[in-house]
Amino acid sequence: MLDQLTICAIATSPGMGAIATIRLSGEKALEIADSIFKSPKLGKKLVDQQPNTLHFGSISDGKELIDEVIVSIFKTPHSFTGEDAIEITCHGSVYIQQRILQLLITKGARMALPGEFTQRAFLNGKMDLSQAEAVADLIASTNRAAQKVAINQMRGGFSSELTNLRGELLHFIAMIELELDFSEEDVEFADRLQLKKLVSKIEAILRKLKDSFQLGNVIKNGIPVAIVGETNVGKSTLLNALLNEEKAIVSDIHGTTRDVIEDVVNIHGTAFRFFDTAGIRETTDKIETLGIERSYSKLDLATIVILVVDSLNEFQVISDRIIKIRNRISAQYLIIAANKSDIGLPETITALKEMELLSNEKLVFIAAKQKTNLDQLISEMQHAVSLESIDEDTVIVTNVRHFEALSKALESIERVQLGLDNLISGDFLAQDIRECLHYLGEITGEISNDEILGHIFKNFCIGK
Amino acid sequence: MLDQLTICAIATSPGMGAIATIRLSGEKALEIADSIFKSPKLGKKLVDQQPNTLHFGSISDGKELIDEVIVSIFKTPHSFTGEDAIEITCHGSVYIQQRILQLLITKGARMALPGEFTQRAFLNGKMDLSQAEAVADLIASTNRAAQKVAINQMRGGFSSELTNLRGELLHFIAMIELELDFSEEDVEFADRLQLKKLVSKIEAILRKLKDSFQLGNVIKNGIPVAIVGETNVGKSTLLNALLNEEKAIVSDIHGTTRDVIEDVVNIHGTAFRFFDTAGIRETTDKIETLGIERSYSKLDLATIVILVVDSLNEFQVISDRIIKIRNRISAQYLIIAANKSDIGLPETITALKEMELLSNEKLVFIAAKQKTNLDQLISEMQHAVSLESIDEDTVIVTNVRHFEALSKALESIERVQLGLDNLISGDFLAQDIRECLHYLGEITGEISNDEILGHIFKNFCIGK
Repeated sequence: MLDQLTICAIATSPGMGAIATIRLSGEKALEIADSIFKSPKLGKKLVDQQPNTLHFGSISDGKELIDEVIVSIFKTPHSFTGEDAIEITCHGSVYIQQRILQLLITKGARMALPGEFTQRAFLNGKMDLSQAEAVADLIASTNRAAQKVAINQMRGGFSSELTNLRGELLHFIAMIELELDFSEEDVEFADRLQLKKLVSKIEAILRKLKDSFQLGNVIKNGIPVAIVGETNVGKSTLLNALLNEEKAIVSDIHGTTRDVIEDVVNIHGTAFRFFDTAGIRETTDKIETLGIERSYSKLDLATIVILVVDSLNEFQVISDRIIKIRNRISAQYLIIAANKSDIGLPETITALKEMELLSNEKLVFIAAKQKTNLDQLISEMQHAVSLESIDEDTVIVTNVRHFEALSKALESIERVQLGLDNLISGDFLAQDIRECLHYLGEITGEISNDEILGHIFKNFCIGK
Repeated sequence: MLDQLTICAIATSPGMGAIATIRLSGEKALEIADSIFKSPKLGKKLVDQQPNTLHFGSISDGKELIDEVIVSIFKTPHSFTGEDAIEITCHGSVYIQQRILQLLITKGARMALPGEFTQRAFLNGKMDLSQAEAVADLIASTNRAAQKVAINQMRGGFSSELTNLRGELLHFIAMIELELDFSEEDVEFADRLQLKKLVSKIEAILRKLKDSFQLGNVIKNGIPVAIVGETNVGKSTLLNALLNEEKAIVSDIHGTTRDVIEDVVNIHGTAFRFFDTAGIRETTDKIETLGIERSYSKLDLATIVILVVDSLNEFQVISDRIIKIRNRISAQYLIIAANKSDIGLPETITALKEMELLSNEKLVFIAAKQKTNLDQLISEMQHAVSLESIDEDTVIVTNVRHFEALSKALESIERVQLGLDNLISGDFLAQDIRECLHYLGEITGEISNDEILGHIFKNFCIGK
């Protein structure tokens, strides 16, 4: 168990800045701050001040002046942690930050563990566990979609819904267990019809949440895009144009790109995770064969596949290639990028245009070297994952821990459903409901233990 | 001239942190903040709130929620810049920081230039120019001495004294110029005896300030320490022991360290800038000869010279070396480090001890490899620059610009002094006094122009 000492940490990004903020939280936060802080207005003690106020003054170590600072006062329970809390905003010298931190420790505070401020917020009931986890996701968010999903979750998201459903389910389990006490009487306190309705509702919600994880994962880590095609059609050139830098080696020698290169880039607020792949063609080179196999295996991981074809080729060659890829992929969104379209064979271009009209294929004419029509390609990519549909009410699971708990809760609620259909006895029913309650509680933190908490918060940054 | 628009910038260190702070300053700071901020307490506008208060709420871009934040309100003239100012503390995601900044710009704020917040504080009379410069020094300070000097200067330091002296001098120039108007009458409005007294006082103060620059420069950049000695006596081993890491190559082959290696390290709050030097000995190796020459030239730059000698050598060899170095250096503080003293020749150790008693040489017996007696060596080094004497009242000039202005002011006040002694005419006297006034005014910023200000503030970080 964690102690209840007053904790402190630098909360702003490490290194030199114009200003930096040091956080202090716990019963003695105000007292400790008062022991090193002096306001120019004599006799002004922080403990006597109103909460949510700012105070200018200086921090000293005995007679030695350390810095002039602004102190923010928060009082229990109206603070992030729920405890009394102080934020000291000092000049952003690393030396000064360290000195103030050391001084606070000398005066009785303890260095905070990673995520300990958020953990205290959870333990003090300021947020549930999934909200606490969203704080870390929010801080780590690097694009609009990830930020959107994290902030929705932090503001309650699905956890309040799960808490409510769990409450309803708890009512039924109480009734069923009451039945078990009176088992000889053969009474039914729990209305089976109502229970069935509730279980159906829970099952539907859990399934929706579980299914959202694929998109959630993609949002968190970037939408995986595989760029495939014969050697020398310009895959690396396209990737470079999209990345806007020279990450991949580009040359005219067939089979240059042997390794799968990955790169995440934010395009209009959406993170795409690109992998350039070795050219897919028959080869006798052993190392290259390995590269091609990796290239194929990556296809399965992609959400979007961009097939690059060469407009300088005969249409027959290109259409063979498209058919081959169509046979290889299933759920992936395929975009055909007809490269070198500025200098392509006129017959090929015409044939491709006809194909586009007749088939459902998404086709974009580009010239990767000249960066022509890349915008159109990008808009096709965004269309593929229609992230615009995510609004404040859209609930998306991004956390593996939640996904696992949801999967297990879903399994148990399905067993409850089956049990109800087969009119199984109350004690078996109760066991499955209990299991479902357990997994739901794990998500929101109503069921938790030190091990789970330790695992969750150890990945937070210090100061949060 | 700079405009009067409301400016904004990220004020905390760049990168991801638990939290980050965005600053907004100017006439429209509150209005702009209100256009994107919503408090959960409906109808609560920031413009209607008391200054020095904190407000929890959310930042939105239209309907899109960006983050939950704490907003600090400062009102003119009681803010850092003297203007209305807002600080938005958000979750420390780089994406969120950028989004909020962009949003503020959309709403009418402009990105702040480097140091523009401090420049506005200066222009609004919140601090003089030397105090403004001290803000940057304070932020850049990496050790106790530099922080001490910077904070003294920021809190007024020598500039208030200079302003007072300048005021007194201004009084005299007015009197002398009045005399010039009545030149035919041959009157003396300015009491020459009083003027002489004042000029002497100013001269003494300027000299003291100018002389403090050498120490000031050393404090700001680290005290330069040269470690010299024959090859293979353990110079690199000593440097490594002092740096506590493996920066220099250490080997048993004579002449390994060909380059001058520099490293700044904080020891008990004082920054020392070490340079290890190539062994000083006769050599035929051309590259090594170059190294040795560099080594000698570095001696002149050092404040402290540590001569490392090998206790395994005969005393005669060592004393020859000491004499050679003594002839080579002048003002530098010499410390002789007798290395390998744990395994040294007993005769040598005895002779060295006798020498210590008879001469004024500072001698420390060490064993660099075993890190024996390094504390004693360090305390000798600290003694050499007695930084303990710097207290809140000690005035030290660390800024090259101040040093140059002080030097020029001193030159002109010396001419005034000479002129008074030689009873030169009032118009020549007035010219020299005017020059002195000019340079004094340059330090405090009473005399300034856009070029000087531009030059000073361009080296600040953005957000300060």
